Amino acid sequence: MRASVLRNGHMTYRDDVAEPTPGPGQVLVGVRACGICGSDLHFAAHGPEVLAMSSRLSHGDGYTNTDLSRDVFMGHEFCAEVIEAGPDTDTYPAGTLVASIPVLLSAKGVEPIFSSNDTIGGYAERMLLSAPLLLPVPNGLDFRHAALTEPMAVGLHAVNKAGVDVGDTALVLGCGPIGIAIIAALRMRGVETIVASDFSQKRRELASIMGAHQTVDPAVSSPFEHVKATVVFEAVGVPGMIDEVILRARPGTRLIVAGVCMQPDTVHPFFAITKEINVQFVLAYDPEEFATSLRALAEGLIDVSPLIAGEVDLAGVGAAFDDLADPERHCKVLVTP
Amino acid sequence: MRASVLRNGHMTYRDDVAEPTPGPGQVLVGVRACGICGSDLHFAAHGPEVLAMSSRLSHGDGYTNTDLSRDVFMGHEFCAEVIEAGPDTDTYPAGTLVASIPVLLSAKGVEPIFSSNDTIGGYAERMLLSAPLLLPVPNGLDFRHAALTEPMAVGLHAVNKAGVDVGDTALVLGCGPIGIAIIAALRMRGVETIVASDFSQKRRELASIMGAHQTVDPAVSSPFEHVKATVVFEAVGVPGMIDEVILRARPGTRLIVAGVCMQPDTVHPFFAITKEINVQFVLAYDPEEFATSLRALAEGLIDVSPLIAGEVDLAGVGAAFDDLADPERHCKVLVTP
Repeated sequence: MRASVLRNGHMTYRDDVAEPTPGPGQVLVGVRACGICGSDLHFAAHGPEVLAMSSRLSHGDGYTNTDLSRDVFMGHEFCAEVIEAGPDTDTYPAGTLVASIPVLLSAKGVEPIFSSNDTIGGYAERMLLSAPLLLPVPNGLDFRHAALTEPMAVGLHAVNKAGVDVGDTALVLGCGPIGIAIIAALRMRGVETIVASDFSQKRRELASIMGAHQTVDPAVSSPFEHVKATVVFEAVGVPGMIDEVILRARPGTRLIVAGVCMQPDTVHPFFAITKEINVQFVLAYDPEEFATSLRALAEGLIDVSPLIAGEVDLAGVGAAFDDLADPERHCKVLVTP
Repeated sequence: MRASVLRNGHMTYRDDVAEPTPGPGQVLVGVRACGICGSDLHFAAHGPEVLAMSSRLSHGDGYTNTDLSRDVFMGHEFCAEVIEAGPDTDTYPAGTLVASIPVLLSAKGVEPIFSSNDTIGGYAERMLLSAPLLLPVPNGLDFRHAALTEPMAVGLHAVNKAGVDVGDTALVLGCGPIGIAIIAALRMRGVETIVASDFSQKRRELASIMGAHQTVDPAVSSPFEHVKATVVFEAVGVPGMIDEVILRARPGTRLIVAGVCMQPDTVHPFFAITKEINVQFVLAYDPEEFATSLRALAEGLIDVSPLIAGEVDLAGVGAAFDDLADPERHCKVLVTP
């Protein structure tokens, strides 16, 4: 079958990938759409560093075993259609549109569907999912929108971890896909003051459409001059952001770090101590948040259509990876096999 | 009157300090004992850096106006005896032993009693306090112990901010006065597993006496090999500690940063993100925590006598500041004018 795989740091089209076979508890699905995530771009460009950093963490992460000298499957923001269940496995009827957290249960254990030499991800014609994890897409939601359940769940999780309530004044730094998902979740929560900051005009416009009440260009003035935030979301993920927040923020600020900064970063603990800042680092979401996110899309509480900047087929994934480096052009590109 | 003042980076004895006069709402007190705090040692040695760092924080702190070319009064861990009240001011009878948060209310506003060219602190024969803030020392508690209400309140506050409960497994890194105060507060809270780490054998012994169930010498093995902590208290305050915790700690760990690191510090956000670490930076305490701390000492819930390594008079403060650099020799030295 066809797939786009990471080979020597580039996404490469292949039409000779072996067809996956569902084992017990697994379901063969046809991928309808898969979003390209910033973490995929980062892994493609900096795979060795990501694996080296991950292997330093004692609790491990499964994917640290990925062998970059072999082809790597990626794609974890997918919506798919049931084809057939494995042996002794009940699932939804063939043709049912489903979403799932990107995890494959097998006899080997729990494998994240993120980067793997063996477990096929969403940049392929077909893949395996786990029957117990499948969520049927409700309300006739478009499969392109359903594919964005995953990134929107990341935003919802960040907002949940922040313990945000309506009276909070929220500042979101960075309006890429994670920042946008946070803004959407804040708006859904009913937060009355949402300020978003990004150097890109395109992204600021998108932030407004998705729910920000005010946007700031940090090239013109610091967002901290515009808002007395009680909660700040860092969704940029480059060195220096955390220190900038703890220097500029008000005493008692909750800082939620959702941007994944891979480099060492310099901070001044003295600033954070003097202000008693709380820093909550966040990652991913739990299954319930994923399900909530899917329901929010299906019920129209969040409309992700403004995020979708384009569609490519499997042969176009490589070019799309290159294009996405430019924030003025794209937010989210879908691969539709 | 007599006092020890900071002059050219050294504590200097003076016998010609002008007697303070209580204004309305103020009380003249005679200092009975004042603990020497690590922050005083740090300010004496690195005053210009502390003031420069503090002045970068927009919300200011009052004491950033301290002029280091003039004599500076310090001493914020005191117990004193009422002498007389200012005009139109009710207070406790002369001779009453009192404690107070180190703050002086005046027509100028709220002044911290920490380092000041004007407001006299506890390294003096007499000082001014604020009538509404005075707490009589109950139960005949020794004035030497009552003077340690303040550092013990710092530990209580850190434990409160951590939201610690009995079932938590707590690891305390650093057993100087702050670490010890945290251990005492954890023990008072009923926490069943308290592990303390320090390079100094003396301090590890003190940690055990004050309530640690287990102590670790980090020169021999990492404390993270001995305990699966749910909450980690950083009470060392040197660069590298935060990164060590986020590298070594378990997913979901709450890290309470109580050690005041003045230097820039390098961290790897990736570690903290992958584990969803929460970092709560803490400073000081609120008035209620201060009062709770005094009550805990007076009721025997915390016995601070093992902490008190020595007493000096006002002429001996300079030498005591030099001595306290050695963790094998001293934990807390009291100035008893």
